[in-house]
Amino acid sequence: MSSKGIVKRSEDFSKWYNELVLKADLAEHSDVRGCMIIKPYGYAIWEKIKDQLDVMFKETGHQNAYFPLLIPKSYLSKEAAHVEGFAKECAVVTHYRLKNSEDGSGVVVDPDAKLEEELIIRPTSETIIWNTYKKWIQSYRDLPILVNQWANVVRWEMRTRLFLRTTEFLWQEGHTAHATKVEAVEETEKMLEVYAEFVQNFMAVPVIKGLKSENERFAGAEETYCIEALMQDGKALQAGTSHFLGQNFAKAFDVTFADKQGNKNHVWATSWGVSTRLMGALIMTHSDDKGLVLPPKLSPIQVVIVPIYKNEDQLKDISEYAHKLKKALKELNVSVKFDDDVNKKPGWKFAEYEMKGVPLRIAVGPRDMENETVELARRDDLTKSTVDQNGLPKLLLETLDKIQEDLFSKANLFLKNNTTQAESIAQMNDILNAKGGFIEAFWNGDSKTEQKIKDLTKATIRCIPLGNSETGNCVLTGESNSKKVIFARAY
Amino acid sequence: MSSKGIVKRSEDFSKWYNELVLKADLAEHSDVRGCMIIKPYGYAIWEKIKDQLDVMFKETGHQNAYFPLLIPKSYLSKEAAHVEGFAKECAVVTHYRLKNSEDGSGVVVDPDAKLEEELIIRPTSETIIWNTYKKWIQSYRDLPILVNQWANVVRWEMRTRLFLRTTEFLWQEGHTAHATKVEAVEETEKMLEVYAEFVQNFMAVPVIKGLKSENERFAGAEETYCIEALMQDGKALQAGTSHFLGQNFAKAFDVTFADKQGNKNHVWATSWGVSTRLMGALIMTHSDDKGLVLPPKLSPIQVVIVPIYKNEDQLKDISEYAHKLKKALKELNVSVKFDDDVNKKPGWKFAEYEMKGVPLRIAVGPRDMENETVELARRDDLTKSTVDQNGLPKLLLETLDKIQEDLFSKANLFLKNNTTQAESIAQMNDILNAKGGFIEAFWNGDSKTEQKIKDLTKATIRCIPLGNSETGNCVLTGESNSKKVIFARAY
Repeated sequence: MSSKGIVKRSEDFSKWYNELVLKADLAEHSDVRGCMIIKPYGYAIWEKIKDQLDVMFKETGHQNAYFPLLIPKSYLSKEAAHVEGFAKECAVVTHYRLKNSEDGSGVVVDPDAKLEEELIIRPTSETIIWNTYKKWIQSYRDLPILVNQWANVVRWEMRTRLFLRTTEFLWQEGHTAHATKVEAVEETEKMLEVYAEFVQNFMAVPVIKGLKSENERFAGAEETYCIEALMQDGKALQAGTSHFLGQNFAKAFDVTFADKQGNKNHVWATSWGVSTRLMGALIMTHSDDKGLVLPPKLSPIQVVIVPIYKNEDQLKDISEYAHKLKKALKELNVSVKFDDDVNKKPGWKFAEYEMKGVPLRIAVGPRDMENETVELARRDDLTKSTVDQNGLPKLLLETLDKIQEDLFSKANLFLKNNTTQAESIAQMNDILNAKGGFIEAFWNGDSKTEQKIKDLTKATIRCIPLGNSETGNCVLTGESNSKKVIFARAY
Repeated sequence: MSSKGIVKRSEDFSKWYNELVLKADLAEHSDVRGCMIIKPYGYAIWEKIKDQLDVMFKETGHQNAYFPLLIPKSYLSKEAAHVEGFAKECAVVTHYRLKNSEDGSGVVVDPDAKLEEELIIRPTSETIIWNTYKKWIQSYRDLPILVNQWANVVRWEMRTRLFLRTTEFLWQEGHTAHATKVEAVEETEKMLEVYAEFVQNFMAVPVIKGLKSENERFAGAEETYCIEALMQDGKALQAGTSHFLGQNFAKAFDVTFADKQGNKNHVWATSWGVSTRLMGALIMTHSDDKGLVLPPKLSPIQVVIVPIYKNEDQLKDISEYAHKLKKALKELNVSVKFDDDVNKKPGWKFAEYEMKGVPLRIAVGPRDMENETVELARRDDLTKSTVDQNGLPKLLLETLDKIQEDLFSKANLFLKNNTTQAESIAQMNDILNAKGGFIEAFWNGDSKTEQKIKDLTKATIRCIPLGNSETGNCVLTGESNSKKVIFARAY
């Protein structure tokens, strides 16, 4: 149980994060290298994320489907950039059977059950999906295909961190097919908007929308759009990507369609995804030294009621009231828990629900019952107030909305206050070492320049912001007419 | 597109099933041996199944969590019966990297990236979960643990069929931990009830609840409860299982708890699961020679409106009405599609929605508009009637309920009419060869007898029905005092 404290952010942000994830019962490491166990409370938050995104995908015309976990090794090679990007982190299935070991000590791989062609566990599904779309697409009438998949994927990571980078993770991957380039680009941009809307309005995490530089593009994409968030330690976190894949996968898998005139053309593609990594962004944006802070829209429990009592009679009174309140809140679609566990003290419960980020806590004691009041505590700013029981459900609903807004405003202010302009590498390093954050600077568009800046500052180009046509002198070379981009050290 | 017909059930039931699955756009084979692609329409039905079960699991106090896909090979060996049951069908991961082949022809497995211990892709998760529960459970206060996981699993099957038996399939697996045997048995039985309720009330598939014989028990269980359904070809299909695992996994993974007196005891366990196999049961119970028949509660589209028109003016009139009707139905939570695709003829649409099992079809033409009527067609019994537009939403709602009931009644009657008593092996074979179905007969409780009966009839014991204490003479040996059981040839 998570009643004990965690290290302060200011002391060791990375340790704070790990302790919080464990103590708030979100996730833990498994014995399998790099694979995590998502615990029920953490999974309940992920379900809220998933359910809301799924609604938004369906509202924009997408349908879910499911494609195989296992991909023939040779598929990966069909798109040159793609294989380059993923081959080095593939889990490979080579056999399909175990047998008892001869010495009776356990089971061994049966050498007679070797696969003719090895299978890899999907690191992403472009190849198996485009191999399928070949069968689904003949004519312009079969387009567009707007499909999404909720799935697990495996990328063999050398250094892993709970939620942020794990060997296996959960995600969704959209894979769409279009008759024209214009339509595919529109889809790519539309889904970036969906991600931005979700992350900002539900996770209360402000983001910058932009394009990746060539170095940071998805393996096989012509253009990668992204949303970038800023964590409290001044490091950036890529929260979602939407890729315009051009005709690369259609060409690799020979997927053509006949247009209205009967001419054959290659199909245009997009793919887009967000993952359990969003949990990391959520945690590192809002939480504090007492534990998790959750935006109400994604909280499995939005209001917790804790009774304070000295005898059974008092508890009975409070319980009656609590159940009435709970009922009224349920009718308003507020999820509420009445914690009348007799084995735990109020102080323990307070700490526990603070650790778990429950947005609102109501404490009710005998004096409150006399005065027809309750004590209301906000998790986000840790303020407490005594409020009337009369009209409480409405007040709670309003306060939840207020918390949702305040969390976004606070994070947005932090992002603004930690976005700094730099005109030289020295300035960049000063800023990065002092406070981190996003750095706005000009870049001449050259990959080698980007690499040199990275070598000198450990910062990468997070994105080329959308809708920004400002130009200036390159922060490294001084060349004029360079594009404005966002640099940061990143997760 | 699926406007063409399929073979008749009476001609070739197995071929009928395969053609239906493909033509109704439910699923298809992938290039990866034994792995299927679940297409958007099929997945939409699975989502309805999943969502409803998830509600029922949560109502009975369960929470979702997520455990790793990959399991160290050695875990499997820890429970003797379990490894015996699963070792022969495990996909084994031996390497974690590919590299470019020296001849430049593609990628090969990098021999330097061999795992020290091989990992298997979960065929089921008891071992990794009980290895985790060891860390979660110290005291009786940590119990019960009521966890469910929605996941993909892999079992290397030699003969596969879409939905019914595939190498990879989707499922849920509940894994609970309890302080007492009584509580664990209660949980096992409760979840069997949840499954029976879901399958009967939502899928409209009648089932017999019972216990498996020792031969058919889950590998590692002390008792396996099951629900058995009967398909239209007279073969049985196991639709769900709930296992009382005793202390087997707690002992294998050394999971103990301190009781109130401070004594250490091994924890009691259950596990229970249903899978995409349910899709097979759904299809084979209700569908007919025109295609899929879906119970309204699980239909992605419950009502389809098809306009019949000769000119734009007529279409405009009908469209106006259709949109009004659609709105009224949405308010009643009825999912409805207005198919005004101008490229397809009404006849094509009729066949298409029959193939896809949409429960109600409304056709509206100019004369209907004049008379303020529509033509209403039921998919289940293929009846058509002309009904008033006035009061239509209410009629549709009632008709959907009626279809749901009628489908169950029809299937239940089929089950009753195809449950036959047999007193000898010869009788059993006569019945099985003539019409199949469930056979009620007595069995002396001996595994060898069971095996002999199977050898002689190709029928297995589907279950020992719950709450039946009838005894009689064993169908093979004639021994008196034998238990009544259900035999069938099965999927």
